[in-house]
Amino acid sequence: MDTAGKPITCKAAVLWEFNKPLSFETIEVAPPKAGEVRIKVVANSTCHSDLHVIDGALWEKRMQCPLILGHEGAGIVESVGEGVTEVQAGDHVIPLWNPQCRECENCKSNKTNVCSKLRDTQNAGLMPDKTTRFTCNGKTVYHFMGCSTFSEYTVVSDLSICKINPEAPLDKVCVIGCGISTGYGAAINSAKVTEGSSCAVFGLGAVGLSAVMGCKAAGAKTIIAIDINPDKAEIAKKLGATDFMNPKDLGQIPIEGVILQQTGGRGIDFTFECIGNAATMKSAFYSCHNAWGVCTIVGVTPPTQELSIITLAIVAGRKLQGSVFGGYKGKDDVPKLVEQYMNKELNIDDFISQNIKLEEVNEAFDTMRQGKLARSVVKFE
Amino acid sequence: MDTAGKPITCKAAVLWEFNKPLSFETIEVAPPKAGEVRIKVVANSTCHSDLHVIDGALWEKRMQCPLILGHEGAGIVESVGEGVTEVQAGDHVIPLWNPQCRECENCKSNKTNVCSKLRDTQNAGLMPDKTTRFTCNGKTVYHFMGCSTFSEYTVVSDLSICKINPEAPLDKVCVIGCGISTGYGAAINSAKVTEGSSCAVFGLGAVGLSAVMGCKAAGAKTIIAIDINPDKAEIAKKLGATDFMNPKDLGQIPIEGVILQQTGGRGIDFTFECIGNAATMKSAFYSCHNAWGVCTIVGVTPPTQELSIITLAIVAGRKLQGSVFGGYKGKDDVPKLVEQYMNKELNIDDFISQNIKLEEVNEAFDTMRQGKLARSVVKFE
Repeated sequence: MDTAGKPITCKAAVLWEFNKPLSFETIEVAPPKAGEVRIKVVANSTCHSDLHVIDGALWEKRMQCPLILGHEGAGIVESVGEGVTEVQAGDHVIPLWNPQCRECENCKSNKTNVCSKLRDTQNAGLMPDKTTRFTCNGKTVYHFMGCSTFSEYTVVSDLSICKINPEAPLDKVCVIGCGISTGYGAAINSAKVTEGSSCAVFGLGAVGLSAVMGCKAAGAKTIIAIDINPDKAEIAKKLGATDFMNPKDLGQIPIEGVILQQTGGRGIDFTFECIGNAATMKSAFYSCHNAWGVCTIVGVTPPTQELSIITLAIVAGRKLQGSVFGGYKGKDDVPKLVEQYMNKELNIDDFISQNIKLEEVNEAFDTMRQGKLARSVVKFE
Repeated sequence: MDTAGKPITCKAAVLWEFNKPLSFETIEVAPPKAGEVRIKVVANSTCHSDLHVIDGALWEKRMQCPLILGHEGAGIVESVGEGVTEVQAGDHVIPLWNPQCRECENCKSNKTNVCSKLRDTQNAGLMPDKTTRFTCNGKTVYHFMGCSTFSEYTVVSDLSICKINPEAPLDKVCVIGCGISTGYGAAINSAKVTEGSSCAVFGLGAVGLSAVMGCKAAGAKTIIAIDINPDKAEIAKKLGATDFMNPKDLGQIPIEGVILQQTGGRGIDFTFECIGNAATMKSAFYSCHNAWGVCTIVGVTPPTQELSIITLAIVAGRKLQGSVFGGYKGKDDVPKLVEQYMNKELNIDDFISQNIKLEEVNEAFDTMRQGKLARSVVKFE
């Protein structure tokens, strides 16, 4: 049956209200308008940013429910709107929550990977024309991060999509859509970890573990992986960590104190905060080498949270910086990361803890809340 | 009269107590021990860091009075202690509050210019052997920043000295010992200001004005100079500023708000805080370009002051970093800066507001407290 140009009725997980579980609904997905692409989502992975939204901790004030979460997906183009030339029906694609318009000041610069073109509408849960493509029982449903891949079908802007190798297993490479790229690139692109250096990664979710992998790929000599869940030690070491520290094992001593003590008071060359917690950011910053340490903030906190640091700790030479989507430009770099996976240069398989059905996603988020699993991949039938 | 090996009796400005004016005393300067150099100070300039110590705002808790301030001086070697080979009597020199031992991990690295060798004794107001070379009426007098150049004679470690062109006028190039290098290098070395970029400099003392000059030398297109003293506009523009802003003229609007408004919400490529105030640091940080702005902190606050910033403002791409002595390695770079002055590539003359006698230094500090003058140079007779 040719669905192009017609609404599609399908299954999706809908967040009707913050702090409530997702509901599994039959929704209607409108056809793509000009410059838009409708995708049959094949796989979508759980990410902490989805969880933070469910828990009302992230962006609550500027978002509207009901909405469809999901931003770490992969799928096949079902149909395209007018003027779309980059992809066509049948192409395998990864939706990009960090789009690449190639036209804005940011896209034209090599100093940032953060496209500014769709920011306002995307943050508002809307398509670029300020409407949505989802309805549920006649009620408007909002988009999320320009992706909304917790749905069998979704519509995205053609700026927010990239074509990938059709041989790539979509239930694996979907993780490149956010977690893997964010952590791996933070080490490789943002911090530019150097050979023989020392690194410390705070928080070992998929992002933190990818940062460990990025530090290893960059040739770091020491990689301290830090998490309050001791079960993370094994996977961290498998991915390249040379040491594991559990802040809960240190009693009253803050972790930065132990790290400074172990490094003769000097600190670590590159630290990464992969949690989204101002207190951990402070620890990551103070754990940096006092004369040249680079602290890269990858985790995202609620909008009003502040990081407070002693000014003298900055003046002496530490650097503080952020990293969004690992410094990768979506259209340029995501297909290359997929190739790296295909060439066995990038480990993804070890990040995927389990495959689940869409209806099991609330349980998967519960496990994530407990800090247990890295990624649960929803495979759509 | 050969003074080598003997104590020298001379005049110095002594700080007996924080928050009190300097006293002009006759002191005794012991001969240099092994690895030390005694200098006849020819000129010494006033710096805010001296003033902050007088006012008890800086390092009070780890410093002891009485002490001899001054760290922006130039002079002639009077005699050297055992084992000193780099300089000899008669050499023209600039004392370095940021020494260069060439042996510590920091000196061997190209990632920092901050030598760690003498840090502890220097901070404690002592020579490397943990004693002092100054006495006044039999009482021990402490050193300051390894220089103590508010004295006709001083003793410094041979790690804290560099030989310069004997043709250079010491009453000009003394300013290279701190202020000029600190600001100029912050733009050139630490921020690496790029051609055609936009810059904003907060605070137009000698350091801020040198930062303006550094931005200009690096080819910045826009240089916004910011100070609450409108009289600074003229000299800032002479040194390269394209715009002058007085935060007092903006009413209730914070300066970062005005800057963001004027740049279409994007912000400035490179900002510099040259005051040492946590509130201004915050303004300088938020004035940065949201995706790639670099905020360089040059000013030094009291040790406990914290800078508190919204974490999301970091994640998006702003960078925060510090700069000490403009990123210059003392022995390697100070003689080159002197040559730049001699070749008329570096403006120093415009920074020197007046020449004074040692006894006029309290009045010069008063004027500095009012934010009026950049530098007053004490010329010793």
